[in-house]
Amino acid sequence: MLGNTYGRLFRVTACGESYGDALMVIVDGVPAGLSICDADIQKELDLRRPGQSPIDSPRMETDQVKIVAGLLEGKTTGAPIGMVIYNVDRHDIHVQQYKDVKDLIRPGHAEYTFFVKYGEFADWCGAGRASGRETCMRVAAGALAKIILQSEGIEVVGYTKSCMGIEAKPMSFDEIKAKKHSNMIICPDEEAGEKMIQKVLEIKDEGETAGGIVEIIARGVPAGLGEPVFDKLSACIAHGLMSIGAVKGLEFGAGFEVGCMKGSECNDIPYLDENGKVRFKTNKAGGFLGGISTGEDLVMRIAVKPTPTVSVDQMTVDMEAREEKMLGAITRRDPTLLARLIPVAESMVAMTILDHLMMWRGYDSVQKFEHKW
Amino acid sequence: MLGNTYGRLFRVTACGESYGDALMVIVDGVPAGLSICDADIQKELDLRRPGQSPIDSPRMETDQVKIVAGLLEGKTTGAPIGMVIYNVDRHDIHVQQYKDVKDLIRPGHAEYTFFVKYGEFADWCGAGRASGRETCMRVAAGALAKIILQSEGIEVVGYTKSCMGIEAKPMSFDEIKAKKHSNMIICPDEEAGEKMIQKVLEIKDEGETAGGIVEIIARGVPAGLGEPVFDKLSACIAHGLMSIGAVKGLEFGAGFEVGCMKGSECNDIPYLDENGKVRFKTNKAGGFLGGISTGEDLVMRIAVKPTPTVSVDQMTVDMEAREEKMLGAITRRDPTLLARLIPVAESMVAMTILDHLMMWRGYDSVQKFEHKW
Amino acid sequence: MLGNTYGRLFRVTACGESYGDALMVIVDGVPAGLSICDADIQKELDLRRPGQSPIDSPRMETDQVKIVAGLLEGKTTGAPIGMVIYNVDRHDIHVQQYKDVKDLIRPGHAEYTFFVKYGEFADWCGAGRASGRETCMRVAAGALAKIILQSEGIEVVGYTKSCMGIEAKPMSFDEIKAKKHSNMIICPDEEAGEKMIQKVLEIKDEGETAGGIVEIIARGVPAGLGEPVFDKLSACIAHGLMSIGAVKGLEFGAGFEVGCMKGSECNDIPYLDENGKVRFKTNKAGGFLGGISTGEDLVMRIAVKPTPTVSVDQMTVDMEAREEKMLGAITRRDPTLLARLIPVAESMVAMTILDHLMMWRGYDSVQKFEHKW
Amino acid sequence: MLGNTYGRLFRVTACGESYGDALMVIVDGVPAGLSICDADIQKELDLRRPGQSPIDSPRMETDQVKIVAGLLEGKTTGAPIGMVIYNVDRHDIHVQQYKDVKDLIRPGHAEYTFFVKYGEFADWCGAGRASGRETCMRVAAGALAKIILQSEGIEVVGYTKSCMGIEAKPMSFDEIKAKKHSNMIICPDEEAGEKMIQKVLEIKDEGETAGGIVEIIARGVPAGLGEPVFDKLSACIAHGLMSIGAVKGLEFGAGFEVGCMKGSECNDIPYLDENGKVRFKTNKAGGFLGGISTGEDLVMRIAVKPTPTVSVDQMTVDMEAREEKMLGAITRRDPTLLARLIPVAESMVAMTILDHLMMWRGYDSVQKFEHKW
Repeated sequence: MLGNTYGRLFRVTACGESYGDALMVIVDGVPAGLSICDADIQKELDLRRPGQSPIDSPRMETDQVKIVAGLLEGKTTGAPIGMVIYNVDRHDIHVQQYKDVKDLIRPGHAEYTFFVKYGEFADWCGAGRASGRETCMRVAAGALAKIILQSEGIEVVGYTKSCMGIEAKPMSFDEIKAKKHSNMIICPDEEAGEKMIQKVLEIKDEGETAGGIVEIIARGVPAGLGEPVFDKLSACIAHGLMSIGAVKGLEFGAGFEVGCMKGSECNDIPYLDENGKVRFKTNKAGGFLGGISTGEDLVMRIAVKPTPTVSVDQMTVDMEAREEKMLGAITRRDPTLLARLIPVAESMVAMTILDHLMMWRGYDSVQKFEHKW
Repeated sequence: MLGNTYGRLFRVTACGESYGDALMVIVDGVPAGLSICDADIQKELDLRRPGQSPIDSPRMETDQVKIVAGLLEGKTTGAPIGMVIYNVDRHDIHVQQYKDVKDLIRPGHAEYTFFVKYGEFADWCGAGRASGRETCMRVAAGALAKIILQSEGIEVVGYTKSCMGIEAKPMSFDEIKAKKHSNMIICPDEEAGEKMIQKVLEIKDEGETAGGIVEIIARGVPAGLGEPVFDKLSACIAHGLMSIGAVKGLEFGAGFEVGCMKGSECNDIPYLDENGKVRFKTNKAGGFLGGISTGEDLVMRIAVKPTPTVSVDQMTVDMEAREEKMLGAITRRDPTLLARLIPVAESMVAMTILDHLMMWRGYDSVQKFEHKW
Repeated sequence: MLGNTYGRLFRVTACGESYGDALMVIVDGVPAGLSICDADIQKELDLRRPGQSPIDSPRMETDQVKIVAGLLEGKTTGAPIGMVIYNVDRHDIHVQQYKDVKDLIRPGHAEYTFFVKYGEFADWCGAGRASGRETCMRVAAGALAKIILQSEGIEVVGYTKSCMGIEAKPMSFDEIKAKKHSNMIICPDEEAGEKMIQKVLEIKDEGETAGGIVEIIARGVPAGLGEPVFDKLSACIAHGLMSIGAVKGLEFGAGFEVGCMKGSECNDIPYLDENGKVRFKTNKAGGFLGGISTGEDLVMRIAVKPTPTVSVDQMTVDMEAREEKMLGAITRRDPTLLARLIPVAESMVAMTILDHLMMWRGYDSVQKFEHKW
Repeated sequence: MLGNTYGRLFRVTACGESYGDALMVIVDGVPAGLSICDADIQKELDLRRPGQSPIDSPRMETDQVKIVAGLLEGKTTGAPIGMVIYNVDRHDIHVQQYKDVKDLIRPGHAEYTFFVKYGEFADWCGAGRASGRETCMRVAAGALAKIILQSEGIEVVGYTKSCMGIEAKPMSFDEIKAKKHSNMIICPDEEAGEKMIQKVLEIKDEGETAGGIVEIIARGVPAGLGEPVFDKLSACIAHGLMSIGAVKGLEFGAGFEVGCMKGSECNDIPYLDENGKVRFKTNKAGGFLGGISTGEDLVMRIAVKPTPTVSVDQMTVDMEAREEKMLGAITRRDPTLLARLIPVAESMVAMTILDHLMMWRGYDSVQKFEHKW
């Protein structure tokens, strides 16, 4: 409703700021009897954690998660899962750095709009709630969603599709899965990945940051998922993905290319596979028809902007002094957001799919007929 | 929640199928004291109505709307507005045409997934609830939202940006508004529009249909609109726009181009205008920072696929007979969806903005301090 | 959210005023494949319809319902069900009567608060949306809920428990069901019912109206229904029942008597029945423990105030003239609301149970273990 | 949605079990610029804390709350407030006590239904999430709501109205407020309070527990609050109050007495006070007409059952062994829940009022007319 809750039956509520005491998340709708422990969540968080490579932020947060509610003897009880991460790398020197420039608009940053929204009380410390730091808790909740989806045979895999125009070659789902962690930019095409990393390092040396495109594929999603009209699965996934700070565009399947297609070029032709199951010869629809899953892979791409923090002087406005000023170089930054954003994007997709699965089964449960198809 | 309701404080719930008796919509959250009449709604519906030009469907629905609840002596009372449109062009011959092919999957159509979802009970008549016919009621509700937004100084304007690769030239907001109705494809660039129409007519003659891109601009949106984290204004608009059947991609501002940009290329530089107001020198962010409005124009583009109904034979599957079959040419169809989709897209954007305006003012109302910026 | 939607997965949205053109309801979450027709809904509506006995209102509304969306060939398709009832008994003479006193507060009526809320634009005609007339659509939606619950073995039965202090004797669920329609006050205890009717007719002759208590019993509700903490089944039923205009109190099981009980007097003792199923020797809990169903009958009682419209002069305030004035006798009124309110109360209980059933099954569906108890 | 979130614009999500690591709450919708600190919340929590008098539980939880998110330099930033309380009094001996009887149904306890709902994975330790321990976080969130309401001139005051049939005499709002803390049972009528305490201590000596009735009054609530039809303020307050574990009945104003009243006995007569404001001569409506506030005090009473834990042997069922068994006396218990439940009930009322205030102002904010009344 308000901004800090996501989902209906699988329902995630989070809080916490960049330089606050802690981040918390409460996940409601987790079924009883699931074996989980801190390490299951930590594993996913470690993929998003900063300070791990020369192309991400040097901020040294350990992102140590602790499950404090919803478990008994290592199993979920049906009660909501509560998790907490305490912020550790927030020394006075960092706070002071932010305080020094607190009236200056940092170009491209989310916090400007928070200043307008909340006035003089907005959090000026490292972007507060507008910081990408909040995405920790998306990943923690997403880890739970992924574990549950796994038991339903559903996998969600994201990777860097392109960076600064360097594109990964087309690869099969299995190859992508197997090789995505071959490099620090999470690109399964090793050659392209190597080039991307070189490009990012070059750009980093200029004090700059790099944009790119992430592709997310969900395999094993049963056909029929999604609600008609306003709550199409595609629309809800769009909501989830576009809620990630740096995302400026989104496509399903053929995406923007449909704008140049004729009807019969765009339509995917159905056929019967060897098991008599309806499949489609192509997947230009990206796995959605009318916003509802077709049983083919869900294929989504998002455009990720370069980190707005740059080590380059930028003119800006001092909101308190009401004058234009120079904002000097800022050093703690992610040269590119791509690698760290991937688990966040996967999490949003996983949570949305799970939520829809629960909704569908919910009202479908009172249906007595047998599905024929 | 389920698929047929949209919004939180400005809350739209709709029903009705392609060939059912009627379409209905209930709009909750409309303030009291607003002067409206059927004609105010009809005006917008007429922009979406079929049968008006050689590039849209020949189905002769008059889409005559009647407000049946929420008004007293021409003014809203604060009660929910109820509107109804009876379907008129649904003759036995059309129903029979659909019945004849009811077990055949129509490639590219939404109804396949409904068949999977609802089994043998799914509506086979003209795609039922999955038909674009439901968008009538989005436009009816959107008309209300636009009227209310107008009193807040907010305008939402959509137009055809490109069709089959033919692009409208960049134009100012005022020009777009003034000239968008110069032609039947709703393109304010008259020259480009003419070419687009020729292209669509050619394609129509082949029995085919055409895709394109629609741009929507919202002007006058105050800075600070949108909720942090999951319910960013941008995320909610993405939800609304991607819930329109034929939309396969979405961008804000520079959109997918950010994937090739460096940080300082992507950042919009703030300045103080002659009135001392913070403005931005460029609008690559499309009017959103951290998903919250910056006060600049909101700029959104959506990729619209070609109508899946084509007058060309297509192989498909007979779900009942479990065999592959040829689906013959279908004649009643929209050569392109672009013109008719524009008021639908505007409606989704308008409803989302209004909903956020109400939410923000709602919790903001208990804040006692004066905003400085 | 706003006031005109109820439920989450089984989701009812309504509109329409006392003297507007029509009442509409949209019911989302209805499963596909259900055989229903107008008559199934009409049957329930006829139980609430006015003008049927000397103890209800003489207003001659036929309440003829028409399903206009969500059906194909007599079966639900999974699309939302749309229903409409046109108001027929609204002649100029009635409108004029209301117009004449439109600035006078009618004591005990809901519309006063609407005047405060919506100012001069509030609907003054027969209480507008605040009129009991809206309950038509609760009954129409409730009829659907009951049909679905029936297929799950769940029944909801309400009856008049007491009127002006005259109490029905304790009776078994089956007797109540069998005999509740023996008289016009819907009291299965024929003797007590006869006395209640005599009392109401006496009171009617004085120009007055009568209060009473309605009991609703839901049988067949499986144990385990209801969500922990805020969305207990009991809390949600309380929400639904207290949303009916004239209801001023609510009890479950022993209700207010628990205020004089000791722990062991209040606790229901569990035992194993002949089938080895856990049952309780008493049902002072009214079928709820921790707000979740125990498998015993849900037993609820609501206090229904006398109709505020009386044929007796009452002092009041003219809001426009800002002076105290006499409000004369009003003749069109229900001598008691009890009989007509019963199907409304049953509907709220049925919708709430169904909604919870769908929610529970929704998230429970991903649980792989077998329930042992 | 699911059970652990409450409210729409002022939105509270909680987690945590009786013997889990911690309880957490996230409060969304808190405006920026509010000065709060841990002590402001602690003050309210201390009123609910156990171990403070001979008539409450001896469990020694300190309920030390820490605000870990949403604050910067002592002021709210508009970000959600996160609070955490670690459980401290959970020694192995207690856990073992619960483990020993984990298959026995404890009569009158909420956890039975959790066992049915969640099967063998349900939390058997001190009732888990079904324990009254969760109400800590209602009080923490309620403390925030009260602070905000205070700035709007709204106060919510609860007290023990009766216990085991001993009634407090009628008193003015100001007297109640001034004297409610004169004794440990929170009864402003000192004489009656003394008798109640004696009665509870007697009952305690028998190994038993005592029921009672709590009255809550909200003063200063503006007229016009509440949404029509399903989301009446009264219905939402009913939802909130009935969601508290031990509550079995609820009345507004005259409550169940309306069942014996005639129309003109029940109606409250409006008049103009010395300032020309509409007031009512009586308040049998309890401050609600049509479920919307009238501007008079909101007056609510709830029936609180005796603690189900008793030091008396009770027959019960062993769910694992499938046989009837004796459950021995349990010693750690609240002799009565009344005193500790009062801040919980106040919190639910405060949160509901605040939520409605925000909703109303939200959509009302786009209304341009001036309210006349």
